[in-house]
Amino acid sequence: MQVFYNDRQAAHHGKHEMFRGELVPCFEVPARVEHVLAELKSRKLGEFAPVPEIGDALLQRVHAPRYLRFLEGAWDEWVALDPKNAQRDALPSYWPIRTFRHDVLPESFPARMGLFSYDAGSPLTSGTWTAARQGAACAWGTAQRLLAGDRAAFALTRPPGHHAGHDFFGGYCFLNNAAIAAQALRDGGLQKVAVMDVDYHHGNGTQAIFYERGDVFFASVHGDPRTEYPYYLGYADERGACAGEGANLNLPLPRGTDFVTWRGALAKALEAIRAWGAQAMVVSLGVDTFEDDPISGFRLRSGDYLRVGEDLAATGLPCAFVFEGGYAVAAAGVNAVNVLDGFRQRAG
Amino acid sequence: MQVFYNDRQAAHHGKHEMFRGELVPCFEVPARVEHVLAELKSRKLGEFAPVPEIGDALLQRVHAPRYLRFLEGAWDEWVALDPKNAQRDALPSYWPIRTFRHDVLPESFPARMGLFSYDAGSPLTSGTWTAARQGAACAWGTAQRLLAGDRAAFALTRPPGHHAGHDFFGGYCFLNNAAIAAQALRDGGLQKVAVMDVDYHHGNGTQAIFYERGDVFFASVHGDPRTEYPYYLGYADERGACAGEGANLNLPLPRGTDFVTWRGALAKALEAIRAWGAQAMVVSLGVDTFEDDPISGFRLRSGDYLRVGEDLAATGLPCAFVFEGGYAVAAAGVNAVNVLDGFRQRAG
Repeated sequence: MQVFYNDRQAAHHGKHEMFRGELVPCFEVPARVEHVLAELKSRKLGEFAPVPEIGDALLQRVHAPRYLRFLEGAWDEWVALDPKNAQRDALPSYWPIRTFRHDVLPESFPARMGLFSYDAGSPLTSGTWTAARQGAACAWGTAQRLLAGDRAAFALTRPPGHHAGHDFFGGYCFLNNAAIAAQALRDGGLQKVAVMDVDYHHGNGTQAIFYERGDVFFASVHGDPRTEYPYYLGYADERGACAGEGANLNLPLPRGTDFVTWRGALAKALEAIRAWGAQAMVVSLGVDTFEDDPISGFRLRSGDYLRVGEDLAATGLPCAFVFEGGYAVAAAGVNAVNVLDGFRQRAG
Repeated sequence: MQVFYNDRQAAHHGKHEMFRGELVPCFEVPARVEHVLAELKSRKLGEFAPVPEIGDALLQRVHAPRYLRFLEGAWDEWVALDPKNAQRDALPSYWPIRTFRHDVLPESFPARMGLFSYDAGSPLTSGTWTAARQGAACAWGTAQRLLAGDRAAFALTRPPGHHAGHDFFGGYCFLNNAAIAAQALRDGGLQKVAVMDVDYHHGNGTQAIFYERGDVFFASVHGDPRTEYPYYLGYADERGACAGEGANLNLPLPRGTDFVTWRGALAKALEAIRAWGAQAMVVSLGVDTFEDDPISGFRLRSGDYLRVGEDLAATGLPCAFVFEGGYAVAAAGVNAVNVLDGFRQRAG
């Protein structure tokens, strides 16, 4: 299995995020993928492939050009506001919810930062664009491997991507790596592509990007949004719209769900993907379903992730794995690599 | 002129707000109205009237019942999350922007706080509901005085109101006092009521509440939202919709605008209100148009506010004044009372 490692991931390193009225240290840190990298190496799993160059054209297939321009220039604008800003992350303070307009583009940088985001937990730093863009290239690389006939490939990257929408960041995500991989598979000639999101948190960005499209099926098993982030999307009655009617499947589960129940939901999602006729699958691989994750509530154990990999392999579909969440930092390595290892063993 | 002073205003006293990536001390503080109160007393302007009781029914004429229930119980819910929260203000962290749903009501308190707000600059404290509700009662009191035949009345209150919408808080505002006064005038029998918003910041909440209604005209002279808060509303092309088509007038002005230009815009707004046929006017009285205001950008001087009062009086309309912004704390007293004094002198 080819592994595309984002060697610029550490350029994005937020200091603080808003959490219950306070600025607290970020949960989403470089060490997360470093543990996965170390585990891959120690188990000699995967071959490291050079990260390809990615053009703006592909990014624009998923994200709005004005959003991409904003992200690329954001740090310089932030520092231009006040030289002291070089020492602190950029966080927005206001957001255009209902009754506000989205068709205006304020000159104010903080206002544009709010326009293009939805939370106060996703600091934008000096290296965010560099890291995110390289991550998108990793995701694109996995799609190219599948198009070349490989059974699987892995984008080992952060910041994660599945909360990022067509024109907004949030939930630690800036560019939607899974959506970029899925779009690349479509652009490479596959007619029907699925995204299977196994992160603890609903992949609201991915869902929204493909919600009205009939060529990409989105399935997600996740914490019930009535009590879990991102709260405002991920309910079971969201089935897609327009051409995408029926091509969206949310399987929310309550806090405390164990692996037996979780695996049953995964089976249901994979059966739906099979029945729909997907030719390939992008896996949003979050491992924050782990029992010791500090901001999540499922009870999967490290050994369970081998079974997850086996179940994914049993679909027979080529799989592009894209790393997402997982905040029990040290355990993220074993857990993510267990998925890949289980997949490899089953796929043969 | 009867003055309804919110004697519970100090119960709302936020510690910090998010501003450019940091938590900074709140600009919106109890001393703001205390300076106005002292100035009223020293100039012997106004007679202090007892604040009437206000029923939930009137609040529900302007705000969504589920929003009111949230506000009333919010502090207790916040402390129930974590006893340590008793020592810190509640601030939301995520917001349902485009692609998210508003028709769900998450169980999570932080998620509901985000659902019912649009910024991270409006801390909710132990006394917010008490202060805001008493403020709404003050606003209601001013409407009752106008209905009884008085030429003017003044609600001296905080937190301010004009950024609060039908079901959200933000911009230091929780209940929309001006909208409540306007609605009370309508319910009291007047057919056509205007709101004249002279605060530096566009009154997005008031506009949105009445945007599709033909019985309340909203006019505002304010800092251009391309560069000034609230950024996502307040543009000149917002003219009202449905039955409210033509009953909304925004006159945005650039930073640095002086009184001569500002007064010209006020004259235009007042002429529109006259031509529309308003029978009474609610004045959202912000004095953050002052040259020394720390978060605003116009250049009005203290003496100019006498002229503002005169111009408002020259319309001949009964006026319910409702206090809004003004963050040059000590000067807010002289400036706000100058408006009332100018009005009184001209109205005779």
